[in-house]
Amino acid sequence: MNISVLTIFPESFESFLQTPVVARAIDKGLVTIDLVDIKDFAHGSFRHIDDSPFGGGAGMVMRCQPVLDALKHVKEQAPSGDVRTVAMTPAGTPYDQKTARRFAELPHLVLLCGHYEGMDARIFGSIDEEVSMGDYILTGGELPAMTVIDSVVRLLPGALRGASTEEESFEDGLLEYPQYTQPRDYDGMSVPDVLLSGDHGRIRRYRRKEALRLTKERRPDLLERYIAEGKLTEEEAGLLKELEEEG
Amino acid sequence: MNISVLTIFPESFESFLQTPVVARAIDKGLVTIDLVDIKDFAHGSFRHIDDSPFGGGAGMVMRCQPVLDALKHVKEQAPSGDVRTVAMTPAGTPYDQKTARRFAELPHLVLLCGHYEGMDARIFGSIDEEVSMGDYILTGGELPAMTVIDSVVRLLPGALRGASTEEESFEDGLLEYPQYTQPRDYDGMSVPDVLLSGDHGRIRRYRRKEALRLTKERRPDLLERYIAEGKLTEEEAGLLKELEEEG
Repeated sequence: MNISVLTIFPESFESFLQTPVVARAIDKGLVTIDLVDIKDFAHGSFRHIDDSPFGGGAGMVMRCQPVLDALKHVKEQAPSGDVRTVAMTPAGTPYDQKTARRFAELPHLVLLCGHYEGMDARIFGSIDEEVSMGDYILTGGELPAMTVIDSVVRLLPGALRGASTEEESFEDGLLEYPQYTQPRDYDGMSVPDVLLSGDHGRIRRYRRKEALRLTKERRPDLLERYIAEGKLTEEEAGLLKELEEEG
Repeated sequence: MNISVLTIFPESFESFLQTPVVARAIDKGLVTIDLVDIKDFAHGSFRHIDDSPFGGGAGMVMRCQPVLDALKHVKEQAPSGDVRTVAMTPAGTPYDQKTARRFAELPHLVLLCGHYEGMDARIFGSIDEEVSMGDYILTGGELPAMTVIDSVVRLLPGALRGASTEEESFEDGLLEYPQYTQPRDYDGMSVPDVLLSGDHGRIRRYRRKEALRLTKERRPDLLERYIAEGKLTEEEAGLLKELEEEG
């Protein structure tokens, strides 16, 4: 998979590219990550990448020309020719694990990072989709792009050593059950007995119930969607009933 | 404001701490950012920070001892003594701009980054709150912590040069209206006439309407909440009606 990142701060990606999972995926040839500096495409003696908004207001707005020329350059250079362009913006579709799975199947993903609060609206006509990382405002699209890359790269086959990505939160639509590790007792707090029982059926059932409990308590929106999508099994319906009876 | 970050990858924050807004806020003394390496608190000859989960399953789970000892150390060293501890986890409360505003008022914020998919559940008893950046899975809590810091630091008075943080997306509960800058025409695409009119009343009304249009189209959940919270003004109700009539 190829990932190109269009940014005015390529240097902000340096440490990120050295984090273990990403660095290993690059080393193993699972992904290439290409940083394209939008500033290199700004024409004129001042090489402006932004300007004041028409109609007034605070802040600066990123100009069409450098961004669209950088985008054109990346598309022309794309080895596969099959490129999907995604802008990081707070007004985009909320990014989720399903989108991460979809992106991980692409031959070439292009991420556009702009001033988070102002890109000329005419830029979006040349973009396939816009994603938002959550309902908060950041300085720029750089951290969102790193977040997308991290979530996508770890899904590439061979990127994670031995670990499975299937039992994680959101993969099936629920939050994950609580985890425990050594020691059995720590500062007066002990591990639930069932996890030490060796009874795999009971452990599976306990974990499923705790996943349902956590999701019901914290993210009723996710549980509602899970039920609406017809994912609730008969066993899970029984566990939900138990939770209700327990209050 | 003081921010402490508990992490097993302090080096992954290097580039981030040099990004313009964060670096300037540190230089101006608006914030201190202290990186605490959890690995320094792991005892024993192997200095394990994680171990296999009780009850079986893939992946490794972060152990109580190094994390809780690192947390105790940070609390003891806190200059104000008034510390709020926040864990970055996918099962947390969804982080939003309101939370960013709340965090920006704190004297001392402590962010705990763990393996995103496994911290011993007994750790959370020593944490004030858990936040999630969105419904996706990452390698660790480091990018989420940087995201929180970026969103919080830019709200600190004096952090942004001249710019206002008040007209942005989510600050009032709606997405932001589209922005345009020079030139008036770019590759056959022109700026809406109203923005060139100099009529501030019309411009304000146009922008409000476009903010409502965008939010209605893309994030009906935000618009519903906006109305439920009684924020819709009479003028906005009129604009919404206009949008409906236009289809």
